[in-house]
Amino acid sequence: MNTFGKNLTLTTFGESHGEAIGGIIDGFPPRIPIDLAKVQEALDRRRPGQSDLTTSRREPDQVRILSGMLDGLTTGTPIGFIIENTNQHSSDYQELATAFRPSHADFAYQMKYGIRDHRGGGRSSARETACRVVGGAFCAQWLAAKGINISAQIVNIGGIEITDDASRLRGEELIRQVKSEGDSIGGIIACQVTGVPAGVGQPLFDRLNAALAAAMFSIPAVKGVEFGMGFEGCLHRGSEMIDPFIPDGQGGITCATNHSGGIQGGISNGMPIEFRVAFKPVATLLREVTTVNHSGEPITLKARGRHDPCVLPRAVPIVEAMAALVMADAIISK
Amino acid sequence: MNTFGKNLTLTTFGESHGEAIGGIIDGFPPRIPIDLAKVQEALDRRRPGQSDLTTSRREPDQVRILSGMLDGLTTGTPIGFIIENTNQHSSDYQELATAFRPSHADFAYQMKYGIRDHRGGGRSSARETACRVVGGAFCAQWLAAKGINISAQIVNIGGIEITDDASRLRGEELIRQVKSEGDSIGGIIACQVTGVPAGVGQPLFDRLNAALAAAMFSIPAVKGVEFGMGFEGCLHRGSEMIDPFIPDGQGGITCATNHSGGIQGGISNGMPIEFRVAFKPVATLLREVTTVNHSGEPITLKARGRHDPCVLPRAVPIVEAMAALVMADAIISK
Amino acid sequence: MNTFGKNLTLTTFGESHGEAIGGIIDGFPPRIPIDLAKVQEALDRRRPGQSDLTTSRREPDQVRILSGMLDGLTTGTPIGFIIENTNQHSSDYQELATAFRPSHADFAYQMKYGIRDHRGGGRSSARETACRVVGGAFCAQWLAAKGINISAQIVNIGGIEITDDASRLRGEELIRQVKSEGDSIGGIIACQVTGVPAGVGQPLFDRLNAALAAAMFSIPAVKGVEFGMGFEGCLHRGSEMIDPFIPDGQGGITCATNHSGGIQGGISNGMPIEFRVAFKPVATLLREVTTVNHSGEPITLKARGRHDPCVLPRAVPIVEAMAALVMADAIISK
Amino acid sequence: MNTFGKNLTLTTFGESHGEAIGGIIDGFPPRIPIDLAKVQEALDRRRPGQSDLTTSRREPDQVRILSGMLDGLTTGTPIGFIIENTNQHSSDYQELATAFRPSHADFAYQMKYGIRDHRGGGRSSARETACRVVGGAFCAQWLAAKGINISAQIVNIGGIEITDDASRLRGEELIRQVKSEGDSIGGIIACQVTGVPAGVGQPLFDRLNAALAAAMFSIPAVKGVEFGMGFEGCLHRGSEMIDPFIPDGQGGITCATNHSGGIQGGISNGMPIEFRVAFKPVATLLREVTTVNHSGEPITLKARGRHDPCVLPRAVPIVEAMAALVMADAIISK
Repeated sequence: MNTFGKNLTLTTFGESHGEAIGGIIDGFPPRIPIDLAKVQEALDRRRPGQSDLTTSRREPDQVRILSGMLDGLTTGTPIGFIIENTNQHSSDYQELATAFRPSHADFAYQMKYGIRDHRGGGRSSARETACRVVGGAFCAQWLAAKGINISAQIVNIGGIEITDDASRLRGEELIRQVKSEGDSIGGIIACQVTGVPAGVGQPLFDRLNAALAAAMFSIPAVKGVEFGMGFEGCLHRGSEMIDPFIPDGQGGITCATNHSGGIQGGISNGMPIEFRVAFKPVATLLREVTTVNHSGEPITLKARGRHDPCVLPRAVPIVEAMAALVMADAIISK
Repeated sequence: MNTFGKNLTLTTFGESHGEAIGGIIDGFPPRIPIDLAKVQEALDRRRPGQSDLTTSRREPDQVRILSGMLDGLTTGTPIGFIIENTNQHSSDYQELATAFRPSHADFAYQMKYGIRDHRGGGRSSARETACRVVGGAFCAQWLAAKGINISAQIVNIGGIEITDDASRLRGEELIRQVKSEGDSIGGIIACQVTGVPAGVGQPLFDRLNAALAAAMFSIPAVKGVEFGMGFEGCLHRGSEMIDPFIPDGQGGITCATNHSGGIQGGISNGMPIEFRVAFKPVATLLREVTTVNHSGEPITLKARGRHDPCVLPRAVPIVEAMAALVMADAIISK
Repeated sequence: MNTFGKNLTLTTFGESHGEAIGGIIDGFPPRIPIDLAKVQEALDRRRPGQSDLTTSRREPDQVRILSGMLDGLTTGTPIGFIIENTNQHSSDYQELATAFRPSHADFAYQMKYGIRDHRGGGRSSARETACRVVGGAFCAQWLAAKGINISAQIVNIGGIEITDDASRLRGEELIRQVKSEGDSIGGIIACQVTGVPAGVGQPLFDRLNAALAAAMFSIPAVKGVEFGMGFEGCLHRGSEMIDPFIPDGQGGITCATNHSGGIQGGISNGMPIEFRVAFKPVATLLREVTTVNHSGEPITLKARGRHDPCVLPRAVPIVEAMAALVMADAIISK
Repeated sequence: MNTFGKNLTLTTFGESHGEAIGGIIDGFPPRIPIDLAKVQEALDRRRPGQSDLTTSRREPDQVRILSGMLDGLTTGTPIGFIIENTNQHSSDYQELATAFRPSHADFAYQMKYGIRDHRGGGRSSARETACRVVGGAFCAQWLAAKGINISAQIVNIGGIEITDDASRLRGEELIRQVKSEGDSIGGIIACQVTGVPAGVGQPLFDRLNAALAAAMFSIPAVKGVEFGMGFEGCLHRGSEMIDPFIPDGQGGITCATNHSGGIQGGISNGMPIEFRVAFKPVATLLREVTTVNHSGEPITLKARGRHDPCVLPRAVPIVEAMAALVMADAIISK
């Protein structure tokens, strides 16, 4: 289904090449001032066409808020919004009406629904993530007012660890190179949530880490999520990985280290929440690939649309948005 | 909350040292024959005290099915069950009433609820996973009758890749060694689900990979989950990682490779579903550790209970159980 | 929250005098042909300004479908829609910014949210029911294709039982009379659902009658719901009220009578589902009423907007729409 | 499904003649003192065999709390409980294995599940309501500590309005009379919830009245629910039925009348919440009735078990329990 969250929810609709995409934010607290220009800014960060590292498609992605606000304040009622689709080149996709692109959702959709909107990926297009950014931007403003801040950044592109300006330039160079070869590349985004008080989250099935992981895996192209010590730290000994509690010097309690990534037993422990998300290389290649059509006959395809060679630059605000939705829901459910 | 799943659910209750633990399986299909001996067998696989690699605690863990069955068949009504707690040494835990064990949920629970059952970890004890194994065992029998099989195995202990008998012996030796040092060790479990038809799962927020990941992160000690190509594969190029569709030779369609791990766009594509789960080293060490008490004063603790030096041997049936719960729910929701 | 249903859901947004109202239908089955003209027709039946019995407000209420359809067929993805608000006379409502109208939701909203959109009732306006009619119209088309039909009609206005043309004219005359007096009047709508096979519904908390009752009580102004024998029949003896099962003459089983109203143990029994819904007289009177303002000071109010003297004529399609949403959800969850 | 509530839930299991019935209360707030003797008292009020007005079956109905409490306080973790089944005369029901009792759920269950536990009604037996009484008793203690009290009473038996001792004796005499004739009788229970602050409930689909109505219709034998003015009041004019707001004399706001029954726009307005629930006459008659068997062949049945001639005396605590579950969930979700 298309609803995310429990007590603060985002429900979205829309296909890549339909009339519009949009959504409904429900359960948002009342009397919260929202700066709509900042919501648009978040959308602009996700928008394609911003640099030579991303697709040259131009989508203005202007969000229109239809309800739930009065005089700049939320009212507690559902916040409906739409983003009109423009600049669709549906003819780019005619060939895909009966083709299953490799490593895309085309085949799985067809098997599930027996029908699919093939234009630009339809519902499975990453275009729907624009709606998540809108929902996340509302949540982030509310969280920020509570001192909770969310920040994501690219930490690895195609094996290049991004730690400073020099490595960032090398990463960008790699993206240009694979683009020039009609290829694509993946990498890793890290995210931190600071300012979360201890005691947020649920202890069993709906653990805060489980909710964050599900949110991340709901983003197209995500293949891995790890918290704190992650895969690598799990190969070490307990004596190296436990986080001793210590006095925080102000009458409270904190941890000496943060191998747990800010969550213990599914509940925040007051330390920064830290996780990493692996994004696969984009499946749409600007070169010939072999696949089959609806009849199962082998064909070759060559993408003609405008596509990202690397999803990571545009995925950063999406990671932040999903994290904001999870954290706001967890805070409101507390 | 303590309910897992959407249309087929498991709700559980119980503390480590309370009277009993148990649960309710709801939405299970009617007229399914269930071999209760096999349910008990699954529980026995999780039970402590089976080898020198696990804790020497002995919990008989006899499950008693209270409802929802008639003459060996399910009736479609909820299946209630309990496992009585026995052999509790609550006195082992007296010291913990006012101590926060490092990297345990003690502190987070106290901050969330303002009260906690400190005996043996209370609700945050891994003991509650016995109830998941019962729920998973029901689901696994139903899935098996549909040709869907789930299998997990340890693939890494403390950095040792487990690929054959020789490496398994080395892994076991490592566990004995860390145990003798009062330390603990983590590792990685891999899981495969075979026989899943294409078209199972939801496309947006409730993607099959998101649901499986949330299920895995709901298991105590899990710090990472990855599908198919995983973290490592995400650093490669798209041309290496796409899974070309090909005719399966029987009039159908399959994939030449499975870097996607059997799920595309959140929906199964007919290939085996493959994922890996990282478990941190057990936080309870049989040596002195420093931490603080409820007043925030530094103390030293030395665990006296009987504990596992490595969670992985007993985690295998839990991974399988959670995967079975997710898959059964996805199949029934199809 | 603003989502209705479990596996087939409608989520709505919008205030009476905001930019637009709208919603998202999620979980709707794929490949169902939908005649959008019929959806608009259902909306037109609810629209004000159709006769001298209803308000003279004119709202064109043109629905715009934004997603979830391809070539006249549903695709299984969420169906987003909006209805732009036009012809708002917000100035009519200036006086209400600080007044609590008697028997309206003004006071309760203010106490819950600490803020409310006072213009035309804001979110609590019956205007939001237009979105339910859109959702219901999609469901009704799908149900009709399965032989399931829903029909509601006014059976009582202000104590006048509506059984034929003569009594209908007397009922309409009563409405005109109370309107001329600046007063309002309530009544009862009956609804039948035919063609439902036996075995639809849930047995315990989510009984089909409980779901239908909740749906009806979610309609503004509803004060009572009864099934089959209803309040009156409950005062009779069991020997008069049991519904004997009999052969249906075609190898199946039916009931000799239908005091149960088509539902037994929360599950349909194959007989027509029958229930009655009581609507209170409209609370907005075109005469002076006494009430208090936000400071708790007594004031007098006289409504100046354009209002219905009796909600029943326009409520008929809303009852049908909510019944269609419940039945479609129950069928899809079967 | 078998879970009731959203943020505070009760999930139940159990058949009339299975090993045990029971349930899990989840989301209950921590650190609430619970008097378990009072929980047992509530159960005792529902228990059969207390007077000559109810069935002579004797069910000790001893509840055993298995988790979620420590030293008399709730801990915020799920509260598991069971009630062992005893004194089952399953042989009384042999005849029913292939018979569909009129106006019972037998036929509907068989059509839904293709299997059913026929012994004593199985899951559809009113015996499961004992679990609701346990859940409600926990909630009622929490609500009472907040000044919220719930009280239900019989107001009509078979047409006799119960307003004083004299009419109560006539009502009881009517029950004895229909019992002696092997017949049964229905009636009406009224319920009041006092002390609810204004602002509790949800405004749209999950209105407080919708939630209470769904809760009441989930009780076996309920055929009608009405709030405040109810069916009768809906036939009157608005000018008679509106509830003017007035100063409460202490700086606050109250209503001069309560035709709304304490809920406006789905949200409490601070007045007592008042509703009435119609219960049909018991369908099990101690006389011969005609029906059909599984093959659709006409048969005659005569109940041999021990049955209530009137459900109302034992239904009062069930109405109170379901109201308590709804109110506690609404308060916790506020």
